[in-house]
Order: sequence, then C-alpha cells, then structure tokens
Amino acid sequence: MLEKIDLSKKVDKETYKQVMEAEGERLGQLQRECKAAGIPVIIVFEGFGAAGKGVQINRLIQALDPRGFSVYATNSSNEEARLRPFLWQFWTQTPAKGRIEIFDCSWYKSVTEDRFDGITKEKDVPGAYQDILSFEKQLTDDGTVIIKLFLHISKGEQKKRFKKLDSAKETAWRVTKQDWKRNKEYDKFLKITEEMLENTETEYAPWTIIEATDKDYAAMKIRTTVTERLAYELARRKEIVSEKPQPSGKPAERFQNGVLSGVDLTKSLTREEYKKELDKLQKKLETLHSELYRLRIPVVLGFEGWDAGGKGGAIKRLTSRLDPRGYQVNPTSAANDIEKVHHYLWRFWNNMPKGGHIAIFDRTWYGRVMVERIEGFCTEAEWKRAYQEINEMESHMANFGAVVLKFWLHIDKDEQERRFKERMENPAKQWKITDEDWRNREKWDQYEAAVDEMLVRTSTTYAPWIVVEGNDKLYARVKVLRTVVDALEKKIAEVSGKES
Amino acid sequence: MLEKIDLSKKVDKETYKQVMEAEGERLGQLQRECKAAGIPVIIVFEGFGAAGKGVQINRLIQALDPRGFSVYATNSSNEEARLRPFLWQFWTQTPAKGRIEIFDCSWYKSVTEDRFDGITKEKDVPGAYQDILSFEKQLTDDGTVIIKLFLHISKGEQKKRFKKLDSAKETAWRVTKQDWKRNKEYDKFLKITEEMLENTETEYAPWTIIEATDKDYAAMKIRTTVTERLAYELARRKEIVSEKPQPSGKPAERFQNGVLSGVDLTKSLTREEYKKELDKLQKKLETLHSELYRLRIPVVLGFEGWDAGGKGGAIKRLTSRLDPRGYQVNPTSAANDIEKVHHYLWRFWNNMPKGGHIAIFDRTWYGRVMVERIEGFCTEAEWKRAYQEINEMESHMANFGAVVLKFWLHIDKDEQERRFKERMENPAKQWKITDEDWRNREKWDQYEAAVDEMLVRTSTTYAPWIVVEGNDKLYARVKVLRTVVDALEKKIAEVSGKES
Repeated sequence: MLEKIDLSKKVDKETYKQVMEAEGERLGQLQRECKAAGIPVIIVFEGFGAAGKGVQINRLIQALDPRGFSVYATNSSNEEARLRPFLWQFWTQTPAKGRIEIFDCSWYKSVTEDRFDGITKEKDVPGAYQDILSFEKQLTDDGTVIIKLFLHISKGEQKKRFKKLDSAKETAWRVTKQDWKRNKEYDKFLKITEEMLENTETEYAPWTIIEATDKDYAAMKIRTTVTERLAYELARRKEIVSEKPQPSGKPAERFQNGVLSGVDLTKSLTREEYKKELDKLQKKLETLHSELYRLRIPVVLGFEGWDAGGKGGAIKRLTSRLDPRGYQVNPTSAANDIEKVHHYLWRFWNNMPKGGHIAIFDRTWYGRVMVERIEGFCTEAEWKRAYQEINEMESHMANFGAVVLKFWLHIDKDEQERRFKERMENPAKQWKITDEDWRNREKWDQYEAAVDEMLVRTSTTYAPWIVVEGNDKLYARVKVLRTVVDALEKKIAEVSGKES
Repeated sequence: MLEKIDLSKKVDKETYKQVMEAEGERLGQLQRECKAAGIPVIIVFEGFGAAGKGVQINRLIQALDPRGFSVYATNSSNEEARLRPFLWQFWTQTPAKGRIEIFDCSWYKSVTEDRFDGITKEKDVPGAYQDILSFEKQLTDDGTVIIKLFLHISKGEQKKRFKKLDSAKETAWRVTKQDWKRNKEYDKFLKITEEMLENTETEYAPWTIIEATDKDYAAMKIRTTVTERLAYELARRKEIVSEKPQPSGKPAERFQNGVLSGVDLTKSLTREEYKKELDKLQKKLETLHSELYRLRIPVVLGFEGWDAGGKGGAIKRLTSRLDPRGYQVNPTSAANDIEKVHHYLWRFWNNMPKGGHIAIFDRTWYGRVMVERIEGFCTEAEWKRAYQEINEMESHMANFGAVVLKFWLHIDKDEQERRFKERMENPAKQWKITDEDWRNREKWDQYEAAVDEMLVRTSTTYAPWIVVEGNDKLYARVKVLRTVVDALEKKIAEVSGKES
C-alpha cells in the first residue's frame, strides 16, 4: 500500500500561498462552527521519524484560533502515564465539546514504534488493536470527529533528514539510536506500519496518507484534508434528525432477570462476630496494601446501591487502617461544567488508579445506566451502548493488571424507609437526607429493573459485581472487606508467582 | 524549642474514644459549614520520619465527608514537578472554595529534608523561606485557612520504628538510607527543623506541635486542633463586615505616571524591512528554541494591550516556525466555574511552562489590575494587593531560571477605531469584534490610568514590561520578536557559561 504512493509530489510557491490562504480562512470559519455546534475534534499526526510532524502541526495551527485548541505531545517517559494502562493518557486528553486536540504521536505508538522496539509484545498486539478500535468508536459515537494523518517519506529521504539533524549541535539530540535502527530496518517498520493502517482504517475514523517529501505540498494537503472533513461532518450532523433525550423509565421490555429479588436479606452477624472478623480483615488488608504497592498492582473498587444502603459505612471500614498515600475515595455527584462537555467516562478515566494504588468510587460510571437512564439525562441509544463501553473500560484496566470489583449494596424497601426516618430524626444525620432521596424512592421498581439489567450485562469474569446483602450492616461490611481481601490475595499470589 | 516538649504524653482508651467521637461529629459539622461558607482549608502534615503521618491522616479523614477533601502526597520524583519551580505542584493542588486539601509532606520539604540532603543549597534557603511565606500569605489573604501540624518523636522512638519497619518484607522498602542518616544525625536535622518552625510561625498560619509517641494521643490532639481552628475561623469570618466588591473605576488618586502618554507611536517599518527582519528573527528564534530545550530553560511571555492592539498577529509571527511540542499559547478569557473557586493566580500557575518550554499568555494575570479593577469584579483590597502577589509569582519563576517578559501592545484611540471599523466591514473578521469591545473603549481613560499604574508597579528587573509601539503592525511584530530573541540569547549565554 504505502510503496505505491508517489512521494515526489510537489507544489509551486504561488499555488501553495493561494491554497493555504483560502483554506486557512475556511478552517478558521469551520473551527468557529464546530465550536458553536459543540463538536469535539481530534487530529492525529502519525508518520515516519523526521517526516516533519512538528513543522506540519505548526503550519496547521497558524490558521486556528488559539482559544480553541491544544497540542498534546505524547510522552512515553511520563511517569504518571507509565503507571497506568496506555489509553489513560489519551482519555484524559480528549477534547471538550467544541475544542480541537492535536496529538503529536498518539495511541498508535503502541502498535508501531513500541512494537518495533519490543516494548509491546507480539502476543499483546491484537489486544492493543481492539483497545484502539473501541476507544475511537466510543469517542465517535459520542460525537467526536477523529482525523488521522499519516506522514510518509521514503527510506532515503529519512536518512538524509536524520543526517542533517545529526550534523548540528542544536538538533543532534533529536535523533536517537532507535531512530537510526528504524531507518536501517525501514522495510520491517514499513510492514508494521502498513498492518496498523489496515487494521485501524474504519468508516468512523479513516486515515489520510500525506506525501511529506515536499513540506509545502504536505502542509497544503493537510490543511485541505482537515477543512474538507470538518465541512463534511458539520453538514452530516445537520442532516441527522436530532435524537432528543427522553425519559425511558419503564422497565426493560423483556423478562426481567430478577437478580435482586433472589437475594437473601436475612443474613446477619452478632456484634462479637463482627468485631472479631472486622479486626482480622482490616489487619490483613493493611498488609496486603503494602504488598500491592510493592508489586504495583492497581485496584478499582466501585460502590453502588440503594440510597442509605450503607456505602459510606462500608467504605469507612474498608479504609480505616489504610495508608492514605495509597488510596483515594472518589465521590461521584452530578457532573460539573467541565465534566459535562466531555465523554461521560472521561472523569472516571481521570481518577483511575496508578499501579500500587486503590481507587474507591462512591457511586460510579454506572450512573449512566441507572439514574441517567431513568431520568432521561441521556438518550436510549446512549445508555444502551454504555454497557459495552463500560465493559471495555473495565477490561482495559483488568488487562493492565488491575483488580476490578463492583459492589451493589442491597437492602429492601422497608429497611430503606426505616433508615430514612432514622436520619430525619437524628440532628447529626439530617444533612444526609434530602427530598430527592424520597423522590428516588418512588421510582424503586424502575430502578430495580435497571439494576437487574445492569448486573446481568456488566458482571464479567474480569470485573465481577458482588451483590451485598445489606439489611444487616455488620454482615454487609464484613462481606465487602472479605471479598476485597480474597481478591487481593488471589491477585498477589498470581503476580508473585510470575515474579519468582 | 522541640526538646522542651514532653513526648511521653498518653491517653487511655476510654477518653480517646469519647473525645474522638465528639470531635469527629463536630468536625463533620464544621466541614459542612466551611463548605457552605466557601472556605478553602489546607491541612499540612509535617514531622520526623516514621512519626506516623500516614496513620494520623487516615484517622483524621475518617471523620470527613469524602466528597469534600483530598489527600495530596508530595512526590519529589514526579517529573512534571521536577521541571518546574518547587511551589508549582502545591499551587496547582490548592483547594477550591469549600474544599479541604490535606498535604502529606508539603512545601516544607525544601527547607527540611531537601536542605539536610543538600538538594536545597544553603544559599537558596533564605529565598525558599521567602517563597513559602508569600505563598501562605497569598492564600490566607484570599480566605484560605492553613492548619500546620508537626508530628514530633524522639531519636530513640524513631530508631525503634525504623527497625520494626525494616524487619518485615512488606514494609522494609519504606525505610531508606536517607531515613537512617537523618536518624543518626538527629540533632542536626532537629536544628534545621527548629529553624524552619521559627521562621514560618506566623499569625495567619501558625504551627501546632503534635506529640506523636502515643498514636491515640496524637490523633486526639490533631482532631481537636483542627476542629478548634475551624470553629475559630468560622466565627472570625462572621464578625468581619463583608467587604463588597465596588466599581472603583476612577483613576488612581495621585499623580499619574503617564507611561503610555510618552510612547512614540509614529515608529514604523517598510514592508521590505519587515520581511527581511522577520525572516532573520524567526530563523534565529527557531535555533534558540532548540537551545533552550536542551538547556531546560522555561520561558514565560505575557501579552496585554488595547483591544485590536495586535496581540494575535504578534503571537502568530512569534510562533509560526516553532516546534509545537515546545510551546503553548494560553488564551485567557473570563474564569470558568472551576477557576472561579480558586485563587485568581491558580489557573496561571497551572499553565506555567516546564523547563525547556515556552508558555505564551494571550492576556494574563494582569486582568486582576485592569478589567477586574475597573469593572469591580474584585475588591479594592484585592487588586491593590495583586501587584505584590504578581511580582512574587514572576520572581518565583525567574529565580527558577525562567525568562519572563511582558508586552503591552500600545495603539492610540484613533487607530483602535480604525481597526474596529475595518473588522466590522470585513466578513471574515466580524467575529472578532463584539459590543463589549465598544463598551470597553468608552472606558479608555480609566484603563489608561490602570495600565500606567500597573506598568510602574510591576515592571521589574527579573520580569520587565516592554511597551510596544503598535500603530504600525509591522514595526510592533518585529520589536516583539527582537526583544524575545535578545532575551533568550542573553539567558542562553548565561546558562551555557555556567555549564562550561
């Protein structure tokens, strides 16, 4: 494929100037339209070393309003990123609605340079492609435009450019040993690159190959590619009849699985049993926490459940002896201004733990398929596709080596009423109960149906749901702790086994 | 001072339980009140190694609502932080209004551990104290409550604890060689610590020494210290008659310095001169950019000026040949929701460049003493104190080795009118002009007075203002470029001189 491309394409100064000016003005205009329409835009620059990504990005952004874009230079030596799965740094950098994010190298590094260098193992390549495809799909489903550019130069041209950089003190540091290796083994790298282009060419995020021998020609083609794509996407969006969010509170129209109705809520513990167990488990967890820090294992614990189901109490018992440097509780409330203009998973990606850390989520990304579904805060298409999106995110964490557990703290309707009333009567607890809690309670059946569906669709081997029998708080807390302890012990044994 | 403290203090289980429960409930209540009052709270945990900071932080946060606080573990191996001046990581972590940020070690590391280890040079110690004092002053002036706790244990107790940690596989990694060295030379470290406590004991951010031999006693004292301080600060704030923002548009009541009125706006260049100069300077800048990357020099360029003064055009010429990986243009518009609940300098701290990078600000922190002053968006006390705050921030960057330049793009009132009209007539430029621009124009004289005062008060040797004669755009652009080139050359020579 790439070898068929005519790399000798050129442009004369006059045409160049004309096209750049006309397309530049058009680009400025399109940027303003995308902003008005709230469309996030991603522009990916990939290509052979010394193909001129820096120069080309700079020529492109000269036509953009700096208030509306940023350039993100992918940095593999970034420690924050290294301790997290590879999509993390890109998820956290996805543009808000109406903004343009330009990636100078991107997630494609994992299946090109890193593969060539042996950092990505061959056995992990198929998984990496899958992650990339689902990442791009999730973003485009959410309305993002992804423009992918590949800057192509020949082996000889690359060699010439490396030599030139190498010859001056100011630029010599730019050419690394690996760069020279990729030039020497150009054909091998070409093959890897072609495979990448083929595997990730999709209708929703297609590639454009840029002949980059002549810088002016390349700049012109890039600018035109971007304007044409933006114009196309803007026009396409105007045609789509806007799918308005509608309350779709009714239970799923199918036989409910009835997970929750089968839960035995009579389980309980005496206070003595509780104290003994709790103490033992907390001590164990403290030791395990040190171990997982040493082994750099990340842990994701999600807590969902009925209002007054005991999430707070369970989290408190879980964390009361942990070193605060190694865990973080992330409470999830309604999205703020910044969160609202990103993909709904964006804020959770931001809080994903690094290796050795525990991230506890008090309410989670499952809000999408519960409250957002029932209150009509998102469209039916959106919450229906969320099950898969969520599974993909959790599997990405799990593949990275994370322990992922999700707890549903279950109580029955009578128990909830008892707890609500207790809160209202106790002055120290009154702040915990609001009118909204009572309103949500009225929708118990709708929620139960949504929860049942959620539990069935998103309980996976790599990220299971644990339904916790919560009418007895003591029993519930111990069950949560024990489940966490067991899962950590298992994971640590697995990883230590590999170590030795 | 520290040697006088009785480290044998203890508490019995019963008292402990009672106090912790009572103070815990009170703390929860106070946290909610602080949230309602929009008060940001910082709690600093410092102390000797193995004094139990982790355990104590954890006991404290058990009483807090996790939706309202975070724990920040200071990390000196954080690459992002290492490439920036030492206050950067703390500025970016300061809490929003109504939130609590707990620092597990803090900015005090620079004058304790880092000083002991020789990372902070003795000659830099006085400067570090000054930076710390102004940092705490700026935050408390802005309404933040700063609670500083120092956990104290004896040399013998520390040794015992290190040994215990060292003896178990899971915890041995926690004790470093430096820890042992600080134990062996306890008296030397004690002296450094005492100096730190004395130098940074202020009325607005006082220290509390915590006797940390008995963990329960320490936990109890910490919890009580925090509740009492919060109660005190809440009460104090109710007494203060709230100082409401008032428009104070009138010119400073003193003889104006008249900086702007003396500017010669007839300066100009022919198009040939311009093209030749521009090309030469841009090429030079490209080379210098590589050099400063290699030498890890950060560069801060601020652009202010009259509306239509030519900021955008000057920035475009400045950046058009730069590698986008090495610079960022930060446009400053009205603060968003998140920015509004932080200190006004917070968002600029977030965008300060790391070593080797250029940060360009299109409008800057000077908004505080111009638009915010004139429109009454802040109080008189606030903008008056801003001159010093700004000088402190810029000096912190300059001391770190940054080049800091600020440009005022100056045109006269007639020229502005001409440009406004031109924009209105040109369809491709209409979006650039709004009613607000015309409204601001009516306040020209007020702005001129404010700008004059600003230029006088904040043009320093380490961060000078450059007034750019802007009626002729060509002249202005070349002057900006030449000033930047000259400053970079000077700095690079200085740093290279040191290198060789």
